[in-house]
Amino acid sequence: MSMNSFGHLFRVTTWGESHGPALGATVDGCPPGVAIDEAMIQTWMDKRKPGQNKYTTQRREADEVRILSGTFEGVTTGTPVQLMIENTDQRSKDYGDIKDKFRPGHADITYYQKYGIRDYRGGGRSSARETAARVAAGGLARAALAALVPGVAIKGYMTQMGPHQINRDRFDWNQIDQNPFWVPDAAAAQEWAQYLDGLRKSGSSVGAIIEVVARGVPAGLGAPVYGKLDTDLAAGMMSINAVKGVEIGEGMSAAMLTGELNADEISMGPEGPVYSSNHAGGILGGISTGQDIVVRFAVKPTSSILTTRRTITRSGEDTEIITKGRHDPCVGIRAVPVGEAMMACVLLDHLLLHRGQVGENKGQIG
Amino acid sequence: MSMNSFGHLFRVTTWGESHGPALGATVDGCPPGVAIDEAMIQTWMDKRKPGQNKYTTQRREADEVRILSGTFEGVTTGTPVQLMIENTDQRSKDYGDIKDKFRPGHADITYYQKYGIRDYRGGGRSSARETAARVAAGGLARAALAALVPGVAIKGYMTQMGPHQINRDRFDWNQIDQNPFWVPDAAAAQEWAQYLDGLRKSGSSVGAIIEVVARGVPAGLGAPVYGKLDTDLAAGMMSINAVKGVEIGEGMSAAMLTGELNADEISMGPEGPVYSSNHAGGILGGISTGQDIVVRFAVKPTSSILTTRRTITRSGEDTEIITKGRHDPCVGIRAVPVGEAMMACVLLDHLLLHRGQVGENKGQIG
Amino acid sequence: MSMNSFGHLFRVTTWGESHGPALGATVDGCPPGVAIDEAMIQTWMDKRKPGQNKYTTQRREADEVRILSGTFEGVTTGTPVQLMIENTDQRSKDYGDIKDKFRPGHADITYYQKYGIRDYRGGGRSSARETAARVAAGGLARAALAALVPGVAIKGYMTQMGPHQINRDRFDWNQIDQNPFWVPDAAAAQEWAQYLDGLRKSGSSVGAIIEVVARGVPAGLGAPVYGKLDTDLAAGMMSINAVKGVEIGEGMSAAMLTGELNADEISMGPEGPVYSSNHAGGILGGISTGQDIVVRFAVKPTSSILTTRRTITRSGEDTEIITKGRHDPCVGIRAVPVGEAMMACVLLDHLLLHRGQVGENKGQIG
Amino acid sequence: MSMNSFGHLFRVTTWGESHGPALGATVDGCPPGVAIDEAMIQTWMDKRKPGQNKYTTQRREADEVRILSGTFEGVTTGTPVQLMIENTDQRSKDYGDIKDKFRPGHADITYYQKYGIRDYRGGGRSSARETAARVAAGGLARAALAALVPGVAIKGYMTQMGPHQINRDRFDWNQIDQNPFWVPDAAAAQEWAQYLDGLRKSGSSVGAIIEVVARGVPAGLGAPVYGKLDTDLAAGMMSINAVKGVEIGEGMSAAMLTGELNADEISMGPEGPVYSSNHAGGILGGISTGQDIVVRFAVKPTSSILTTRRTITRSGEDTEIITKGRHDPCVGIRAVPVGEAMMACVLLDHLLLHRGQVGENKGQIG
Repeated sequence: MSMNSFGHLFRVTTWGESHGPALGATVDGCPPGVAIDEAMIQTWMDKRKPGQNKYTTQRREADEVRILSGTFEGVTTGTPVQLMIENTDQRSKDYGDIKDKFRPGHADITYYQKYGIRDYRGGGRSSARETAARVAAGGLARAALAALVPGVAIKGYMTQMGPHQINRDRFDWNQIDQNPFWVPDAAAAQEWAQYLDGLRKSGSSVGAIIEVVARGVPAGLGAPVYGKLDTDLAAGMMSINAVKGVEIGEGMSAAMLTGELNADEISMGPEGPVYSSNHAGGILGGISTGQDIVVRFAVKPTSSILTTRRTITRSGEDTEIITKGRHDPCVGIRAVPVGEAMMACVLLDHLLLHRGQVGENKGQIG
Repeated sequence: MSMNSFGHLFRVTTWGESHGPALGATVDGCPPGVAIDEAMIQTWMDKRKPGQNKYTTQRREADEVRILSGTFEGVTTGTPVQLMIENTDQRSKDYGDIKDKFRPGHADITYYQKYGIRDYRGGGRSSARETAARVAAGGLARAALAALVPGVAIKGYMTQMGPHQINRDRFDWNQIDQNPFWVPDAAAAQEWAQYLDGLRKSGSSVGAIIEVVARGVPAGLGAPVYGKLDTDLAAGMMSINAVKGVEIGEGMSAAMLTGELNADEISMGPEGPVYSSNHAGGILGGISTGQDIVVRFAVKPTSSILTTRRTITRSGEDTEIITKGRHDPCVGIRAVPVGEAMMACVLLDHLLLHRGQVGENKGQIG
Repeated sequence: MSMNSFGHLFRVTTWGESHGPALGATVDGCPPGVAIDEAMIQTWMDKRKPGQNKYTTQRREADEVRILSGTFEGVTTGTPVQLMIENTDQRSKDYGDIKDKFRPGHADITYYQKYGIRDYRGGGRSSARETAARVAAGGLARAALAALVPGVAIKGYMTQMGPHQINRDRFDWNQIDQNPFWVPDAAAAQEWAQYLDGLRKSGSSVGAIIEVVARGVPAGLGAPVYGKLDTDLAAGMMSINAVKGVEIGEGMSAAMLTGELNADEISMGPEGPVYSSNHAGGILGGISTGQDIVVRFAVKPTSSILTTRRTITRSGEDTEIITKGRHDPCVGIRAVPVGEAMMACVLLDHLLLHRGQVGENKGQIG
Repeated sequence: MSMNSFGHLFRVTTWGESHGPALGATVDGCPPGVAIDEAMIQTWMDKRKPGQNKYTTQRREADEVRILSGTFEGVTTGTPVQLMIENTDQRSKDYGDIKDKFRPGHADITYYQKYGIRDYRGGGRSSARETAARVAAGGLARAALAALVPGVAIKGYMTQMGPHQINRDRFDWNQIDQNPFWVPDAAAAQEWAQYLDGLRKSGSSVGAIIEVVARGVPAGLGAPVYGKLDTDLAAGMMSINAVKGVEIGEGMSAAMLTGELNADEISMGPEGPVYSSNHAGGILGGISTGQDIVVRFAVKPTSSILTTRRTITRSGEDTEIITKGRHDPCVGIRAVPVGEAMMACVLLDHLLLHRGQVGENKGQIG
């Protein structure tokens, strides 16, 4: 019942603080025999790594993952995999001036009230740096998924940044990796660059929406009530720093539909059931349909901005604060690989659960 | 690691199907010494009970809760509380004609694919009837919360039905219990009644958005990463039948804000920190601030409608279906007390967790 | 993290008190498609049922199990199975005279200190009556095990009662069901009957040792460290009322062996590895070897006896107590089917875990 | 539901293999504000460290613990504490000759059958080296316990080695730390030294019994059924490598007692209930009484011996094996600090659980 763990059979426990010597993920329950090495995981780490362009924090971290346990001769052994990332650019001096002040919108005040600790060095455990460990664990989950269900593909991208939404008519999978925003729309990428430049220069920040899609997921993952696949996806995404909303398929807009519009009609295709649409986001009654799994989540704007905000000190005095440091004008950008990692972890976990509890799908259609 | 359980220290396991002899909640971890009886829980059951007005299913269920264990001389004993509700109006004949067809938008097809079972009698385990057990458990959670943190108040209401939203300027807490929609806006109640009458008569259905607010929750509940209060709220709400999206505070709209707008500024009030706004929904870094906890969730339209939809049979033949039965034109209405119940369970659970892991808040301000 | 649950994927939560209206087991994670009905479970219930002969408590309970959920058309559906047993012979008047006294050797005093509750009606939740729910759950586990691994056989028996041990040279599997002590030794059965008659008439009681053997368990169940098969067996047996010790294979006597004696030598047989002996009790490094799984546990003497014992009252006064009531002179007798039930639950659970985490055994020998 | 975790609220996940780069414990749920540093933990590590005298393996490991997370300015922060121990003397060449053979009595064969992995380098994850991580976690648990319940003392010692038992009449707490066997009996220490010297020289090994006592534990820890304090102690001890039996209080000998002898009579002392004896081992009905908690466990002889044993190879051929390596003639010696560590972890965990679920003891006597 660890508060720092996620998953049931594929269970990830992350540890570490923004400015401690290291952070990492203790991953228990990875199936044995999965080919993995540090370079494979590094690929995903590099997507999230800070300091890669002017739109992300200038903190310089190599984010090199070391596998300290759980593999032998290049494959997983069925025992816990320890993925450690050393912190190399902590520069905690940046944070000295906020030592006794609580940054509005940050966890500083609640963390202090609860634990009596003010780890002013970059947010401590509440820093988004924790998500590096998620991406490492997600890399392992992807490798295991690929071994167990060849053909599964997971892809995340931004669909909104501040007031700017993508144009779904211009949606292009190939664009996603071509721009710093992971946006599947070349025109949007240009527009957003300009917009974000302005925000960055003014020391401001903005929120975003990320969509993560998983293709090739077999029908039958998930369970009817509290073990719903969407329940775990919602929990996974909401546990990411700064996330304030999670949607499956139609999401909040489902409120506006009538039953006629919302029902994804079913017909029989050559390889099984085919659906006329995917309002459900690939999940019915908590169980995957075989369609694309579609999850969206909203990330609030970075709370660290260069505009003065009113706050209080530990001793309860009213004061003001400007958060200088090195920050992302749109933290949503780096949330894209994190969302992908959570998707990978949830899917692998439910695949193992399904295999344990049911074996293989029991009901054949046709 | 039960797939039918929810919560950590206050742990609710629900059981039972729509058309079995009974359903219920096995509640483990309720603190001892909480005064509870069947009548207290019945109050909440009656809010969710079907057949109360023309806008909810005409299935007639008394929904009487029996406490089979865990209390002695009117108080909880610290042992599991078994809350059982007998099904009395199963009328399974209603469902005979859909025995071999999968209803679009329902769990029928995925449940069958996974388990090889087609419990055609009203959805079986996937029926929204399961939420009766949640409301019973929520009634117990409310009683325990009230004993441990006097003054906590939890209230849910609808803010949107189809295209109709409430007018926040007319928000009136006292209106909520005065209309069949739990809507805090008298004018909206009238308008919605007319709208839903039309839908009901045409055999259609519509989605809705429910907001649940908890007032008087102390600062310090929740934990930084996977044990976030919002993570468990998101999981809890997403686990309710037909829910497709969950928001905390600003929710999906956080994507549109800048950092300046989003930061709830802090000043020192006579009894502790005071916030200039509540974009955060009462939770910062996963931990409660002491402000109102604000959660919203979207419920999709009831999938059972009187319009013909295309679907397939178990043997894989294309066919059509009309779902007659007894259904809610807006299942969101009855989701209001369910959302309240989940809020109560999550808050009590985190209160116990906080007490166990920390004791009491360690950091005093001022 | 329920304190009243047992198991990981096959998860049993028991509920109910000795003198409440009912008790039962909420069983989550039973695989779908297992043929089960109340009569099948009743077979096992009847082994444990009180009042069957003069050596067990004269409380008359039919111990009839009702399946309230989780099955449809005679098979499990993959959803929680609720197994309820109504209490019919509570006669709580028996207990009135001990209302304010703590019975030595019972949980009365510690339960009161912890929870502030003195459920004097036969021990409340701490009564051995709880084990009826275990036996019901065990009946379901046996059915699922039989479906998944045909040929598994689980058998428990007594090996010691007070100073009397069985003679292993006379061990006869067929004797076990022929006497009230489940002892595999006809001569011992006669001797023990005489011995226990004496104890019973004098209002005394005595302890016992039970051995449970599982035959036909495949190699590979369990995991190296905290997920050891023996860890869960130890926990399962120790959680039974009145159990004070648990042994696997050689057990405590392993302390007296040298490495030469203890090593079960391995050779290759026609169907796989064959061992020269089974000091290990069928488990090496926490994982089953394919040999018989052998577990033993000691049950202390019933604490309710007719001899006056010194104790104190709730208000802290020294006093004396005689526990009349209806009790077992050797509660170990009825612990035999309970031990079998725990074995069945643990094995099924680890079978599902193995299937989920590994799939099937990866390493073939030869 | 991690298979490599232990505990509920104080949750320890160990990771690492005998011959990997490092091993450690990820400890979640340690209360905030506990003063801890590496030196404090090192004290306990040094008790278990190999190579300290001729009776333990000659592998040279500094066993230096590094705290990588979870503390700030010398106190715990309430976030996961990562305790890492680097392996420095792996010398895996020692093991080359057993690469394809399964050592009898070891986990080699079952681990291979399950996972398809033969980590021949000293047992891999199944090596007793894992217990170093337990001792580190136990050091943290001791510090937290001391902060929360001043006066708790935990002490382990050997009571039997092969055929040699201690003489309880000579029991002397002060002797325990004066000899390499942690035996509370000076005469036994001499006798055992001579005995073990003989075994060591002949390349043999022997089993042992360890007793761990916790003094000063308040009444009220534990819960009635599956959450029994003794259940978790049994699981904890049985999860230690080579353990084959666990006893609480009277243990297996409880089978020989009558109810009159077994009942620890109660009277009222100046500070609360006083017991005439402690057959119960400090636990009644799963809940602590306030008396000494007494646990014993048996450790089998080291399976690595210099006598030839018959075994098979991975390809299924009969062969023989002598395990040279560097091993302990009586691995029970180094199990003493491990047993203490498990006791500390279980007690802290149940203290936190009790605080969370009940708050403080509800029932006052007198």
